[in-house]
Amino acid sequence: MDIKVVRNVLEENQVSAQKVRDRLRERRQTLVNFMSSPGSGKTRLLETLIPILKERGLRVGVIEGDIATARDADRLKHLDIPIALINTEFFGGECHLAANVVLGALEAIDGPPMDLCLLENVGNLVCPAEFDTGSDLNVVLLSVTEGEDKPVKYPLMFRNSHLALVNKIDLAEVVEADVPLLRRNLQQVNPSLEIFETSAKTGLGLAEVADRLCRLHDAKRG
Amino acid sequence: MDIKVVRNVLEENQVSAQKVRDRLRERRQTLVNFMSSPGSGKTRLLETLIPILKERGLRVGVIEGDIATARDADRLKHLDIPIALINTEFFGGECHLAANVVLGALEAIDGPPMDLCLLENVGNLVCPAEFDTGSDLNVVLLSVTEGEDKPVKYPLMFRNSHLALVNKIDLAEVVEADVPLLRRNLQQVNPSLEIFETSAKTGLGLAEVADRLCRLHDAKRG
Repeated sequence: MDIKVVRNVLEENQVSAQKVRDRLRERRQTLVNFMSSPGSGKTRLLETLIPILKERGLRVGVIEGDIATARDADRLKHLDIPIALINTEFFGGECHLAANVVLGALEAIDGPPMDLCLLENVGNLVCPAEFDTGSDLNVVLLSVTEGEDKPVKYPLMFRNSHLALVNKIDLAEVVEADVPLLRRNLQQVNPSLEIFETSAKTGLGLAEVADRLCRLHDAKRG
Repeated sequence: MDIKVVRNVLEENQVSAQKVRDRLRERRQTLVNFMSSPGSGKTRLLETLIPILKERGLRVGVIEGDIATARDADRLKHLDIPIALINTEFFGGECHLAANVVLGALEAIDGPPMDLCLLENVGNLVCPAEFDTGSDLNVVLLSVTEGEDKPVKYPLMFRNSHLALVNKIDLAEVVEADVPLLRRNLQQVNPSLEIFETSAKTGLGLAEVADRLCRLHDAKRG
């Protein structure tokens, strides 16, 4: 019976995800869903990535998903872009963003023209992977401080992602991270995962990620 | 309707949590529930903590909760203690350990005498906080690499914990962590939280944590 309930929730979510996709296609917008554990560096990465995307001529918007507080949204305010903040504690402290919530956020930031919408999901390496947001691309961040074994221990997240950003790469030496092993673990779980090594602190790898998102938008909507 | 389903699940969980508590009282055992994001250092901390607890004369057992793989359990095998491994992917890849699962694990490692059972929950800063496991003490780990804002962004976890271990403290300088700010954020969310600064790498703070667990066991069951 438990399984049945979960199935219904997921089926309902699929209906909303399709509405998100329809909306994006109509408006020629591209949605990218960033997921990771708490503290892997999603917000800081967006802070560094968005100016590069703007230089490339893309009009960017952001949807910030947090259980509580407006802290992440506040950190992005200086970028002068449309931001929709979702606090899931108002509907039960949910551990992920469901597609109907994303749809509402897309409607909320409608107004200024937008090409690319970056969705920062709730910090959680488990539940967000189970819910299709209607996004065109799923990106998982994994900081080198988290350990090389995480892809095999949390496989669904890495199976359902298209890009993996091995983040905080500037700390790899000091935390004695085995990056080749981490890459092998990523490939073992999902051989088609595209892997980027990134540091929001030094900027390493972010131009390549920006290129990848520009190409995605051009291919889908350009 | 959604809320009703969640309530039923939580009510059912409370019944099982009470069974866990009854079992622990009968057997004079103490259960400590370790929670954190993936990669905060739970397993490595247990590896360092358990020998100290054994030196103090406590007979220790471990319940390892993971979505997939036996990696964490394997890392503890050399400690020569009873270990029960729970892989949640066999029942839907659950993002937390429910009390009925913990009860089954306690039954599974019954045999050799045990005073203290350490439960390593699924790596997730959200969902495990919602499910009472029947434990005597909840411990949350937060690595300094995760950012000072996490207590206010994931408040339920820190509200439902008794001890907070600020872990990987040896990395505080290199990641420019503001530990006083982190402590203030912890206290803001839960003023009665006992805070320990720890490093499984250098051993810092672990004797104090071991003392705390010994005192707990003596007070409850000694």
